[in-house]
Amino acid sequence: MRNLLDNLEKYSVSVSKEINSFLSNISPDNLKEASIYLTKSGGKMLRPALAIISCEALGGSERNVIKTAAAIELIHTFSLIHDDIMDDDDVRRGRPSVHKVWDDNIAILAGDTLFSKAFELISFAKDDIDSVEHIHQAISTVADACVKICEGQAADICFEKNFKVKEEDYLEMIFKKTGALIAAATKSGAIMAGANQDEINIFYEYGKFIGLAFQIQDDYLDLVADEEKLGKPVGSDIVEGKMTIIIVHALENGNSEDRERLIDILKNGNSKEDVRLAMDILNKYGSLSYASDLAQKYVFDAKKLLDVLEDTHHKQSLISIADFVINREK
Amino acid sequence: MRNLLDNLEKYSVSVSKEINSFLSNISPDNLKEASIYLTKSGGKMLRPALAIISCEALGGSERNVIKTAAAIELIHTFSLIHDDIMDDDDVRRGRPSVHKVWDDNIAILAGDTLFSKAFELISFAKDDIDSVEHIHQAISTVADACVKICEGQAADICFEKNFKVKEEDYLEMIFKKTGALIAAATKSGAIMAGANQDEINIFYEYGKFIGLAFQIQDDYLDLVADEEKLGKPVGSDIVEGKMTIIIVHALENGNSEDRERLIDILKNGNSKEDVRLAMDILNKYGSLSYASDLAQKYVFDAKKLLDVLEDTHHKQSLISIADFVINREK
Repeated sequence: MRNLLDNLEKYSVSVSKEINSFLSNISPDNLKEASIYLTKSGGKMLRPALAIISCEALGGSERNVIKTAAAIELIHTFSLIHDDIMDDDDVRRGRPSVHKVWDDNIAILAGDTLFSKAFELISFAKDDIDSVEHIHQAISTVADACVKICEGQAADICFEKNFKVKEEDYLEMIFKKTGALIAAATKSGAIMAGANQDEINIFYEYGKFIGLAFQIQDDYLDLVADEEKLGKPVGSDIVEGKMTIIIVHALENGNSEDRERLIDILKNGNSKEDVRLAMDILNKYGSLSYASDLAQKYVFDAKKLLDVLEDTHHKQSLISIADFVINREK
Repeated sequence: MRNLLDNLEKYSVSVSKEINSFLSNISPDNLKEASIYLTKSGGKMLRPALAIISCEALGGSERNVIKTAAAIELIHTFSLIHDDIMDDDDVRRGRPSVHKVWDDNIAILAGDTLFSKAFELISFAKDDIDSVEHIHQAISTVADACVKICEGQAADICFEKNFKVKEEDYLEMIFKKTGALIAAATKSGAIMAGANQDEINIFYEYGKFIGLAFQIQDDYLDLVADEEKLGKPVGSDIVEGKMTIIIVHALENGNSEDRERLIDILKNGNSKEDVRLAMDILNKYGSLSYASDLAQKYVFDAKKLLDVLEDTHHKQSLISIADFVINREK
């Protein structure tokens, strides 16, 4: 784990450098500051790291994919800024969110600016790669992920307090909201390495699986994590009445009495005791272990896909990242 | 003028068809409806028409540029939806704006979706054109315009009630906010026609000049138009305290007493009488005719650029559009 984190840190430095230099000429100043703010708040930069490692694992160089990797981080940041406005979340990565430091208008524009800059940045990859065909494919891949992010966020909003959501629909929602951009990162890495279509497909699937596992692990951690490490109260999804894979599973499998009790807690619960009562129901139907098993299954599937790769330290990094997704504590 | 409008109508039909078919698979339904809503509200579709006519004027076909043209209209629509949220404008094209029919969250997402779809659509131009290099250039051009639109909108927000704005800064703001996407449309048309760099530059400049003239004419019409044709009260920019080229000119050229009176009206004015008093000051310094002359100068410059083109009906259309920009009554 320590090795992996050091490795991610190394990529994070290159990506930050690329981002900072590319965003430095935005004007006016308040738009520049609002656009840059969240890119400097110490995110893990998992997506760009995945793009770079995927490219290197298939014989490409960091330089081939650095602009695309940085662009994907900009897209991720754009979606966080707009999501925080929509959910009126006050805090992001331990700091006030963009629309709280500035206002909704500047936050909308900062998101839009990062989005625009992302596509400009990928198109500038021409300096670092011979094939304009590869750039075209990367742009197409990232644009497709952006559509899915919007669709996933809209579905997430529709699912609020909708207690009839099916597991299949929930998984599609989290694939779009979280998995699609991670899959676009690994796929773009493969594209920029000049990989063949089979390899590109494998890297897309790998990214999709770890993206799904990532979100399911988020749902799981909300209920079982060490509160101090998690940085927020355990069970806050239940108090907020959020649909998670665990809730969806219990509502699909519980008897009508337990369903009603759980729905009542999701609608009205606000205490630690309410969370404890909900946990009893979730445990009764094995919903927590169901979620944990599902995340592990996706990670297993993701790693299995990598069997075709030669044994390199890049392959080892991709395996470690897959493991990290379900072994992290926050 | 009648001929020109018929011509625009023809292009508008093709572009609408492209847009409708491309947006039909957005999900969930409320996101699809919110995304499509404004594309069906009878806009002039001047930008896509300019892209197509520019392409045809340089020997390309409508098919070469139709996806890029439609994408540019999607970008324009995205910017209207987000601008209406920021300005809390209730009405757009005579109908309730997107955030009024749905809410701010769905409107933010609808804008983001159109933005994403636009880049996806340009990348799909591969079906209609041989050169992936041209698609790459078009994407780069449109992304650059998107950055400028955000910067222009941010500058516009900064300029509100800022009575020290210089003409140069105002012109840069309207170039970014309005001119850049029009210039991207004409430039993309040239790119997709396979034009050489000189021709591409000329078409960019042509678009830039008519974009500037378009916005200045908007400022001018607000004060001199027939109220019924304009569809809103004459002088509403003054009542809202907006900075326009006319106000900027008067504030730069007026004596200190007139400046103070004008600023007082911009801050506090709300009646027809206030508008009349402001008009007296604007006329005293020739600010209205200054604006009108400037718009005409830009249109003259735009048309002059077209001298290098052979005499075709496409060239005639570009001349007519330039004239239309300053001869329109709303």
